[in-house]
Amino acid sequence: MKPGKVYLIGAGPGDVELLTLKAVRRLGLADVVLIDDLANDEVLQFVPKHAEVVRVGKRGGCASVAQADIEARLLTEARAGRCVARVKGGDPFVFGRGGEEMQALLAAGIAVEVVNGITAGLAVPATLGIPLTHRDHVHGVTFVSGHTHQGDEPDWAALAKSGMTLVIYMGMSRLGLITEQLQQGLPADTPAAAIQYGTRPEQREVVGTLATLAADVAAAGLGSPALVVVGPTVDLSRLPARGQTIEKEFA
Amino acid sequence: MKPGKVYLIGAGPGDVELLTLKAVRRLGLADVVLIDDLANDEVLQFVPKHAEVVRVGKRGGCASVAQADIEARLLTEARAGRCVARVKGGDPFVFGRGGEEMQALLAAGIAVEVVNGITAGLAVPATLGIPLTHRDHVHGVTFVSGHTHQGDEPDWAALAKSGMTLVIYMGMSRLGLITEQLQQGLPADTPAAAIQYGTRPEQREVVGTLATLAADVAAAGLGSPALVVVGPTVDLSRLPARGQTIEKEFA
Repeated sequence: MKPGKVYLIGAGPGDVELLTLKAVRRLGLADVVLIDDLANDEVLQFVPKHAEVVRVGKRGGCASVAQADIEARLLTEARAGRCVARVKGGDPFVFGRGGEEMQALLAAGIAVEVVNGITAGLAVPATLGIPLTHRDHVHGVTFVSGHTHQGDEPDWAALAKSGMTLVIYMGMSRLGLITEQLQQGLPADTPAAAIQYGTRPEQREVVGTLATLAADVAAAGLGSPALVVVGPTVDLSRLPARGQTIEKEFA
Repeated sequence: MKPGKVYLIGAGPGDVELLTLKAVRRLGLADVVLIDDLANDEVLQFVPKHAEVVRVGKRGGCASVAQADIEARLLTEARAGRCVARVKGGDPFVFGRGGEEMQALLAAGIAVEVVNGITAGLAVPATLGIPLTHRDHVHGVTFVSGHTHQGDEPDWAALAKSGMTLVIYMGMSRLGLITEQLQQGLPADTPAAAIQYGTRPEQREVVGTLATLAADVAAAGLGSPALVVVGPTVDLSRLPARGQTIEKEFA
């Protein structure tokens, strides 16, 4: 039997309108869909009626067995000649383990196509009017994971010195430690924001400084999934009242 | 008269299929479109027939007068009550000067909505199967401009030490200098790639190392617009023949 193809599809940050045209078209080809927790279920409206939907719940630190199971399932489905849509939150190649899945599939001779998505680091700051770069302030942006794997820690001192806007994914559980380390290389009053459920109706945010953010987040009761943004352009945010928590209606 | 609204729209890296659903819908509301050179003209298929299209050619180092003219035109159109689509290549908040335009509009009391696009740094490496992050190799990615403004140079030594995958925009004219400086903090054999016209039919790429890339690019005759990617995941690329130039048919 001719093996099927696997589409590694980025579903974007939450707002289903941020799907690309390519993602919509590829979803329309699926016989089976493997979808992550962090991807918005609304993307399933673009899947054919006959398609089987498999929820492969992953959130934060997932066990490697689960990842191996996902990869095994992708192989099984493709080998059965089915067209597989593997749907991830954000972009498949930014903290999505898409690289690992691609490697496993290519090693088995299965065709793979990567369909990009808007990663949260692009979309979530934009909801607050925070540009990631700005000629007068900053010449680049770093997307970094605050969730360590096997005790491997990003070099926060080097990142602090790099002069980039820092967008930290999965950093909420270690926010105090991270903001403290960043203050080794950045002023304590560097603007910083944390945004939970970005681009979704239940989005909530806190804006402060590197020195205050961890306490601000605790006081406001923000949790995961959330994104942290650090750098001068946070100050260009068009929040109506900086330094305050803005709670929107839950949808 | 009630002022119009301005949509700062990211058109993505070139492939029109990488437009978001939101971008398509906002384009459909436009009375006037101001479009950059780097955005693919095909996006204009989504604009209403009555819409006026204004090409505001910008490529590489544009004069500040031109930028001021663009901002003035955005204000004039919005004040005349028109709905304005300001279309940029990639994402409006990543090297797109969208932050400056947003500031000018908000200062004048004009409503602005940012519509994200797939920035080239996400899409172009994906065409070669290069993941930007990978649990076993790298915990983040930096998008940085190699085009300096007012002699302001990114701290390449800090970036080299940061451990991030580096994606360098607008770095081709200074590639020798940049790769040399990165070798102060990264091994000479760090995998590196340059990709011109990424995601378009005329895409061409060279894959080598930090030590060889500038010469490889010169030998292959690659130029701007192009993206440079540096880091271990470049080695995961599924190019058929690493180290060689792959020329695709011109469309």
